[in-house]
Amino acid sequence: MFRPKIKVIDCTIRDGGLMNNHDFSDQFVRETYRALSEAGIDYMEIGYKNSRRLFSDKEFGKWKFCDDDHIKKVTDGIESKTKISVMVDVGRVEIEDVKPKKESPVDMIRVASYVKDIDKAIHLVNHFADKGYETTVNIMAISRALDNEINEAFEQLEKESKAKVIYVVDSFGSLYQETTEFLVKKAKSIIKSKEIGMHAHNNQQLAFSNTIEAIIHDANYVDATVYGLGRAAGNCPLELLIGFLKNPKFDIRPILDLISKEFIPLSKKLEWGYVIPYAITGMLDEHPESAIKIRKGSKKEDYREFYESLKGKGLD
Amino acid sequence: MFRPKIKVIDCTIRDGGLMNNHDFSDQFVRETYRALSEAGIDYMEIGYKNSRRLFSDKEFGKWKFCDDDHIKKVTDGIESKTKISVMVDVGRVEIEDVKPKKESPVDMIRVASYVKDIDKAIHLVNHFADKGYETTVNIMAISRALDNEINEAFEQLEKESKAKVIYVVDSFGSLYQETTEFLVKKAKSIIKSKEIGMHAHNNQQLAFSNTIEAIIHDANYVDATVYGLGRAAGNCPLELLIGFLKNPKFDIRPILDLISKEFIPLSKKLEWGYVIPYAITGMLDEHPESAIKIRKGSKKEDYREFYESLKGKGLD
Repeated sequence: MFRPKIKVIDCTIRDGGLMNNHDFSDQFVRETYRALSEAGIDYMEIGYKNSRRLFSDKEFGKWKFCDDDHIKKVTDGIESKTKISVMVDVGRVEIEDVKPKKESPVDMIRVASYVKDIDKAIHLVNHFADKGYETTVNIMAISRALDNEINEAFEQLEKESKAKVIYVVDSFGSLYQETTEFLVKKAKSIIKSKEIGMHAHNNQQLAFSNTIEAIIHDANYVDATVYGLGRAAGNCPLELLIGFLKNPKFDIRPILDLISKEFIPLSKKLEWGYVIPYAITGMLDEHPESAIKIRKGSKKEDYREFYESLKGKGLD
Repeated sequence: MFRPKIKVIDCTIRDGGLMNNHDFSDQFVRETYRALSEAGIDYMEIGYKNSRRLFSDKEFGKWKFCDDDHIKKVTDGIESKTKISVMVDVGRVEIEDVKPKKESPVDMIRVASYVKDIDKAIHLVNHFADKGYETTVNIMAISRALDNEINEAFEQLEKESKAKVIYVVDSFGSLYQETTEFLVKKAKSIIKSKEIGMHAHNNQQLAFSNTIEAIIHDANYVDATVYGLGRAAGNCPLELLIGFLKNPKFDIRPILDLISKEFIPLSKKLEWGYVIPYAITGMLDEHPESAIKIRKGSKKEDYREFYESLKGKGLD
């Protein structure tokens, strides 16, 4: 028996954009939207709503800014029940750039925040909720936060925010199923009036299983990406998640076609997925930045040296 | 706190051999043995002990037969506490070929069996136990067996066999953590005098998490392979397992070196790992044979067609 409350958010273009400066072609984004629509996916996160005052559109592609006109261009004419989501980062968005919901093709705005910025995140998310959007707060790098900080953040979000969903985000791909269970249960125990979401990274090949684990413990919003495309090791593969979920509204076949036609060619040009330096940052609970950097240089396969450079950092 | 009873069995050469007719060079096997020894891995499964009357050594490499002399050649002169394991299949071994333990470099013999052949497996395993070997029975394709058959097999193995370990084998990579939990708990509830083992396949990127799940439910023998090398999607990656286990006797660094030097070059010549047709057979609980076949032809990326060919088989 499936759980109708489970919603799938595809964030292929948004998280994948972190690997190519958000510079996907219109055709690629449109084909992705078409396939997700045919597959019955609930939401498609199409990019970031970042400030043009902080980032140049000479350096970044259009999915870092997600202008309403660009979104319309890639979605117009495609029959779809898939809602559109954009992500904003605390400190990187101009709220005046965001029109009221009724004037925009965007349905949901997700606010990404570290635990320490939770007051700013609540301010932002309430602003977007007041403008008529569905909203979430996604707590990044939660594996690095202290327990009392997480408790306080969850309590504030429950009491002070208008967000519909609060996400556990395993930014570094360092959670195991026991740590996922711990965090999702904690969220459920404190946050009673909202749904819980899970956004996993695949550094240790655990993104899919941690997503299942979150579902087992009653998270109803789950993120995935086509063929796992996303920063570094990528995310929970959408095709696996659809294969697991029993809701008959989902159809895996358009996703299989999309992978054949668009993602296999892309995988020859762009590296993501199971790569040892990403596995190493995952097991050491580190940001993948250093691993992404060494994958671009001549020492890309010098795994021992990379491992020892992280182990040897020494902080005390 | 780590659990000292957990033993890691590397089966890179044995399961990986299913992808190249067991034809690894002596140098490759020796470097693998050296790295596993330095890493503190408990067992190395070096191949099959198959009958030369059934299989030709013109068609298959030496690790399908595992002659004692060949094993000695790749292990001699390397300081090691790593024990040597070989696998035998019910119906494919000549028991007379297996010398008594004290005359052999082999420490452990693992008998692979379907549930239906459990009587034959018990006969074999008791024979090898009597010859002085450590022994296991590995129940293959357990995801396809009926519950009463599994119960009966576990009861017989507990009462009638001299095996030290009974393995749950997810041959098709179709188990999730809940099904893994169910099977391992069942095994533990019936088999009291032996250890439980887990051998996972990675079709759905769940080999590592299912291995963790088995450990959570008190399986103490866990299989893994270097860089996940194994049939089709491969197995639980050893480097991830070592990163997870807390026992200070394990050292990941020799494994990282081995991947850099031997497995990255191999991965350019031999395909294994996360490949969509293998994911499809995993989610449909099918043998990967049909997927391996289409990966060798011109329709290797025609995922929808492959999916529909399996869904449409119709059996009633």
